[in-house]
Amino acid sequence: MDRAASPSLAARADDLQQSDIRSVTRRVEEVDGINLGQGVCDLPTPEPIKARAHQAIRDDASIYSHYAGIEPLRRAILEKEQAHNEVPATSPEDVVVGVGSTGVFVSAAFTLLEDGDEVVLFEPFYGYHRNILELTGATIRYVPLGGPDATFDRSAMEAVLTDDTKAVVVNTPANPSGKVWTREELSTLAGLLHAHDLVAITDEIYEYMLYDGAEHVSLASLPGAYERTITLSGFSKAYNVTGWRLGYGVAPAPIAEKIGLMNDLLYICAPRPLQHAALAAFEDLDDDYVAQLQADYAERRELLCETLEAIGFDVPWPDGAYYVLAHFGDLAGTQAGFADDAAACDTLIEDAHIGSVTGRSFYHDPADGQHELRLCFAKELPVLRRACEQLRAAFGG
Amino acid sequence: MDRAASPSLAARADDLQQSDIRSVTRRVEEVDGINLGQGVCDLPTPEPIKARAHQAIRDDASIYSHYAGIEPLRRAILEKEQAHNEVPATSPEDVVVGVGSTGVFVSAAFTLLEDGDEVVLFEPFYGYHRNILELTGATIRYVPLGGPDATFDRSAMEAVLTDDTKAVVVNTPANPSGKVWTREELSTLAGLLHAHDLVAITDEIYEYMLYDGAEHVSLASLPGAYERTITLSGFSKAYNVTGWRLGYGVAPAPIAEKIGLMNDLLYICAPRPLQHAALAAFEDLDDDYVAQLQADYAERRELLCETLEAIGFDVPWPDGAYYVLAHFGDLAGTQAGFADDAAACDTLIEDAHIGSVTGRSFYHDPADGQHELRLCFAKELPVLRRACEQLRAAFGG
Ligand SMILES: Cc1ncc(COP(=O)(O)O)c(C=O)c1O
Ligand SMILES: Cc1ncc(COP(=O)(O)O)c(C=O)c1O
Repeated sequence: MDRAASPSLAARADDLQQSDIRSVTRRVEEVDGINLGQGVCDLPTPEPIKARAHQAIRDDASIYSHYAGIEPLRRAILEKEQAHNEVPATSPEDVVVGVGSTGVFVSAAFTLLEDGDEVVLFEPFYGYHRNILELTGATIRYVPLGGPDATFDRSAMEAVLTDDTKAVVVNTPANPSGKVWTREELSTLAGLLHAHDLVAITDEIYEYMLYDGAEHVSLASLPGAYERTITLSGFSKAYNVTGWRLGYGVAPAPIAEKIGLMNDLLYICAPRPLQHAALAAFEDLDDDYVAQLQADYAERRELLCETLEAIGFDVPWPDGAYYVLAHFGDLAGTQAGFADDAAACDTLIEDAHIGSVTGRSFYHDPADGQHELRLCFAKELPVLRRACEQLRAAFGG
Repeated sequence: MDRAASPSLAARADDLQQSDIRSVTRRVEEVDGINLGQGVCDLPTPEPIKARAHQAIRDDASIYSHYAGIEPLRRAILEKEQAHNEVPATSPEDVVVGVGSTGVFVSAAFTLLEDGDEVVLFEPFYGYHRNILELTGATIRYVPLGGPDATFDRSAMEAVLTDDTKAVVVNTPANPSGKVWTREELSTLAGLLHAHDLVAITDEIYEYMLYDGAEHVSLASLPGAYERTITLSGFSKAYNVTGWRLGYGVAPAPIAEKIGLMNDLLYICAPRPLQHAALAAFEDLDDDYVAQLQADYAERRELLCETLEAIGFDVPWPDGAYYVLAHFGDLAGTQAGFADDAAACDTLIEDAHIGSVTGRSFYHDPADGQHELRLCFAKELPVLRRACEQLRAAFGG
């Protein structure tokens, strides 16, 4: 191959490849199917948020903002984290607005981790967490955590801790498992943070998607935990603006300051007019909005879980977030096309025109996900109904 | 200090600190002055662009886009780069839309560079280029390039090349010097790319800000150069939307694909509704827009350069971009308050209520910038006029 035509790349780039999720998306589009793979919510954005976006654009609120976000938004986030999450943040200086919660995760990971460090990640994991952590040069230690009913096992985590362990990533409610960490589990984890001098990054982007009375607890709200916790959340999921790229992190000011400076370097700032719009989430929408959102998702969850059970999947119903990580170990032995996750994913596309995500995407050892598929129920109800009908028509039930 | 209260950070974060530019901003605000420091343009956004942003938000074009941007925007950028920049890109696959040109610079740098690599950066440099390159782990080799009248010196670059040199960063028109690279200089550089197996990242964000007949030439348009060049540009400067965080890169598809995947990981995508809006830059604005922009900036450049000369600065008039890197070596010996760049910056704030940036910000050896200040003329004309009056009132002339 001509040397000129292909400059050598950094090792970290050689490893990058199109995720399965994208190729599924393409194949589902080809058969004009319904994609329950990607965690993309197609619901409309609430009007008050749109109204403020229009206003900000009209007013030319269009220049770079402070790298950590506009002051009123940082203040509103502070107040929300204090009141709603009981996080003992004390000043807008504790808040960093970023390009999605992902942007703040990246800035936090680059601020904390480097070559020689180790970081704990629970499995099944969210793929971006794994891939971003790898970019920092740190080594990932995986700890199995199972589904919504599995309990965090202190000794399983202790087993992977070394002198080099610097951080742990928590995701509650979790993608893909739907697990919601309990107060007791988080207390146990907080103890480990202190005992082993660790920092936690907690991704709470699904904090409002809760079912059957599950309660969202922020790790940083527990006694003594705030000093060692970077809490992430955002607007993408709760307000259906995944493409706006707006999220935030909350941490003690000295850490937040460094995360903000990293954010400056990598992002300069979050999209300015949309920052103004996000204020509406705190000022113009009330508890009814969240109650409605929860009712809407509860209905969708029931619909999808019941459908998957009817066609023979073993379904650990999620306590939070908007995914089902469904098991098909039983089908694997009895039904053609379900030999493993890749086959099952193909079969769903071909026979039901439904997109899903292979289980292997969520484990460092692909074998661990070989009998699992993730499906997302953040869809307009008529679309989700049609998807469920297609599944029943294809696989009985 | 309590260990718990200050977790140890990665070395790359320890080095991060508030830039002088921000502290100047704060001090200028305190005296209710005019900030000619930051390269932030306070002009309004063109109406056609705003109109499309409103439309996209109304239409709920709000979910994640493809990581490399929406197809029509990638196509429009391709056509612009072909027609206007004479860059031989062949497909929308050669285009990556990112979170500002900065976002694409970050993704490109992380795709190309790693520990052990070396990268060439010309001085004076744009600070983000230096700081982002450092994050990749590569070692920076600095090559002096001087002001708008200095010529690129092939031998000065050859002197720093080693077997580990992998890339070179070009910025034309340049911030802060105002230098516009000529076709001859770029041809010389293209020869070096081939001879030494290098890749160029060219930041062309100021491509439309040109004076006195200066011509913008894209390195990638030169014979054989496209294969080794990542061309960056964006919307921030030409359309007064710095805070929208929208820019792009163009490179041969195999490289663009990797940059896109890195972009996915770090950014997921550029702000979706604003991507739709950016289409207006290509479809709804014509050559008159650029002609008017150039006339507007030419007037501002003349005003600021003449004022600075009148008060005793030695001013290399920029051929492009919207900054003046003014020298005050003569004043340093004769006038109190101008001993060095930090003193001069203070003096401008205190005596004239004008913000500027210290010369040291643009050199790896601060001494090289000790008699220079950068001032930006991207201001509403009445504001710039007032700034110039304040400078004359404070320092005579
Ligand atoms: C666990 C988790 N965190 C973060 C994100 C992305 O959030 P954002 O849009 O705020 O970057 C997702 C989206 O799928 C997610 O599942
Ligand atoms: C040389 C240069 N490149 C890039 C940028 C930032 O561009 P963007 O807003 O597209 O990230 C600036 C802004 O000052 C700049 O001076």
